[in-house]
Amino acid sequence: MTERFDAEGFLKERMEWIEENKPLIHHITNFVVMNETANATLCLGALPVMAHAAQEVEEMAAQAGALVLNMGTPYPDLETAMLAAGKSANRSGVPVVFDPVGAGATAYRTRIARQLLDEVRFAAIRGNAAEMAVLAGVEAEIRGVDSLGVKGEVADIAATLAESLGCVAAVTGEVDVVSDGKRTARVSNGHPLLGRVTGTGCMATTAIAVLLASGEPYLEAAAAGLALFGLAGEKAAGSSGRLPGSFHVELYNTLYELSTVRKLKGIRVEL
Amino acid sequence: MTERFDAEGFLKERMEWIEENKPLIHHITNFVVMNETANATLCLGALPVMAHAAQEVEEMAAQAGALVLNMGTPYPDLETAMLAAGKSANRSGVPVVFDPVGAGATAYRTRIARQLLDEVRFAAIRGNAAEMAVLAGVEAEIRGVDSLGVKGEVADIAATLAESLGCVAAVTGEVDVVSDGKRTARVSNGHPLLGRVTGTGCMATTAIAVLLASGEPYLEAAAAGLALFGLAGEKAAGSSGRLPGSFHVELYNTLYELSTVRKLKGIRVEL
Amino acid sequence: MTERFDAEGFLKERMEWIEENKPLIHHITNFVVMNETANATLCLGALPVMAHAAQEVEEMAAQAGALVLNMGTPYPDLETAMLAAGKSANRSGVPVVFDPVGAGATAYRTRIARQLLDEVRFAAIRGNAAEMAVLAGVEAEIRGVDSLGVKGEVADIAATLAESLGCVAAVTGEVDVVSDGKRTARVSNGHPLLGRVTGTGCMATTAIAVLLASGEPYLEAAAAGLALFGLAGEKAAGSSGRLPGSFHVELYNTLYELSTVRKLKGIRVEL
Repeated sequence: MTERFDAEGFLKERMEWIEENKPLIHHITNFVVMNETANATLCLGALPVMAHAAQEVEEMAAQAGALVLNMGTPYPDLETAMLAAGKSANRSGVPVVFDPVGAGATAYRTRIARQLLDEVRFAAIRGNAAEMAVLAGVEAEIRGVDSLGVKGEVADIAATLAESLGCVAAVTGEVDVVSDGKRTARVSNGHPLLGRVTGTGCMATTAIAVLLASGEPYLEAAAAGLALFGLAGEKAAGSSGRLPGSFHVELYNTLYELSTVRKLKGIRVEL
Repeated sequence: MTERFDAEGFLKERMEWIEENKPLIHHITNFVVMNETANATLCLGALPVMAHAAQEVEEMAAQAGALVLNMGTPYPDLETAMLAAGKSANRSGVPVVFDPVGAGATAYRTRIARQLLDEVRFAAIRGNAAEMAVLAGVEAEIRGVDSLGVKGEVADIAATLAESLGCVAAVTGEVDVVSDGKRTARVSNGHPLLGRVTGTGCMATTAIAVLLASGEPYLEAAAAGLALFGLAGEKAAGSSGRLPGSFHVELYNTLYELSTVRKLKGIRVEL
Repeated sequence: MTERFDAEGFLKERMEWIEENKPLIHHITNFVVMNETANATLCLGALPVMAHAAQEVEEMAAQAGALVLNMGTPYPDLETAMLAAGKSANRSGVPVVFDPVGAGATAYRTRIARQLLDEVRFAAIRGNAAEMAVLAGVEAEIRGVDSLGVKGEVADIAATLAESLGCVAAVTGEVDVVSDGKRTARVSNGHPLLGRVTGTGCMATTAIAVLLASGEPYLEAAAAGLALFGLAGEKAAGSSGRLPGSFHVELYNTLYELSTVRKLKGIRVEL
């Protein structure tokens, strides 16, 4: 019999390490959520840096604790920068997390996502069901960057992607499913209001990156990051009167409190 | 005798439709307000997508419920993208809303605005008095992106622009004047604090786009969108202690409440 | 015996002038803080404009009350724009403020900073200890855009830079040190939570720019701007439960209150 994963204990240790070591989280991300993901990084105790010029991304990625590649507002120069940064991170052993925002919504995004998956070795990928289905070759309905439904089981999509890419694949939704191709974790933290604030998916990816910066095993780290973010969402919903403006503000507060005070009761990861 | 326009009833029906159908609002907008207009779109019950690469804007615009072109931080690639997206939307019958941010402030912005008006068929244009005056060929004083005054009557500017362009023209200010060239609506919702938060004009444009996505008649839809946004501003001022940081947060809350609960007493549209 | 600098009185007069004259603050800044610095500008009573196309920056900068060049997310076109805008501002007598975000973090950023310092005449530079040390040729440890420590005294770094560049140099940290090469001011306003919200350094630069738009002497103006911003941070910490999301919101509120009500007790500038 295998021991159950103690997500609370795992997170507590990792958050202490992060607060102490302040890993640099290099983001090449979309222009919608730059401020929001930088603030989420700070709330989690790490240091954000946003840098997307081809002239500097290799140098910046090489000194990072983790690299986030998020293609939410893609354009040609950003493709180049993401490829260069990803390869540099690979050479330096820096874990890279991919957020394929809107894969499937346009041929351009699908093409970029495939090229990144071909040329960069990712430690983790996080997307909604439709984005991840598209990358796994499964039929899906997507409107802009929002998933409207997929054919087939989310757990299968996660496992297929994880196995074929040799990385952790996280499909987020009402329950987040995280797979490394062999094992599957289910995270049931979260709140519907997260869907009423833009960029919360991107922040979830940032949370994964911050946890991955604290080291392997990446399946546990990714699941723990999502659980922490989801729990912050639950607590924020409770203290915000369930209105999206206040919820957005409270989300930073609860992320910060969870990261610094580390009262993590309520974390729900099945593994 | 013609019936008076029942803006409350109109809005109630439209907001129900929007919540149910979640139209995609494709924004090609400035880098200052990407997050803010995406969040306003979500608060209004629609789905935002920000995409500005020439490689994908035609495909994205064609599947949208409405397209926003906002030239607040223009640069050459964005010009190209806005023209391509606008024409694609025109081909697909998707209504296009234009926000000529800073027209008149520099020759470059005035030139872009004129080219867009020449090559794209707009459903609606919204700007402050100075921006709209410049486009109508009327003398105006502008500082950066703020209107300091215009020669002539705002209602004439709106009517002239609407008639010459064959679209709805909305000049926003203390009272918003919205014309389709034949009829003119006046919206007296709003609050001075909206002038103390950046991007509220851009959010008003987003509100118009969300309403236009629910169908014609566009004069009524545009006026109703502005009234809804202005009423949200009034309510936000009341609940925020009249301080701009809190007001900004409350604005999302009130937009969301008005869109979901739909208690629309206080909407003031004269038509 | 020289008189002590009355920062409170100075600020009161300047904030009245700013509210009345609404100077335009042209920012060419990073994509992380565009919204935040625009809102800080509005809270301070000035008008922000963000414009970064080479096609318009010379025209925009020439009509501004002050120009901010912030290299937080640099790329080649932005270099060109910053150089052109800076030179235009110099020709028009518009004070230019430089924020060398991340100088020292990559060779690319260090190179851009040096080129700007060579080709543009700045009225003031503001950075953290590591950024300013790098520009002064002093050894420093930097992670991303955060200073982890410098060799030598911050006051020497400020004075060296100020003297060699013929401008005001502000090194911000727990105590801000501001020098014009001959005299040195120390500002002890501020709060640790400012380090938990991204872009507060950029906002401090904006505060300097707003004050410089009200005229010389620039040493006093820069120190007063930093003190005002720091005091806003202290007050925001007190009213936000010391949580970063609420603190960020309160920061705009307190900036606005200090700018409009002008109860400036607590300003601490030694000069």
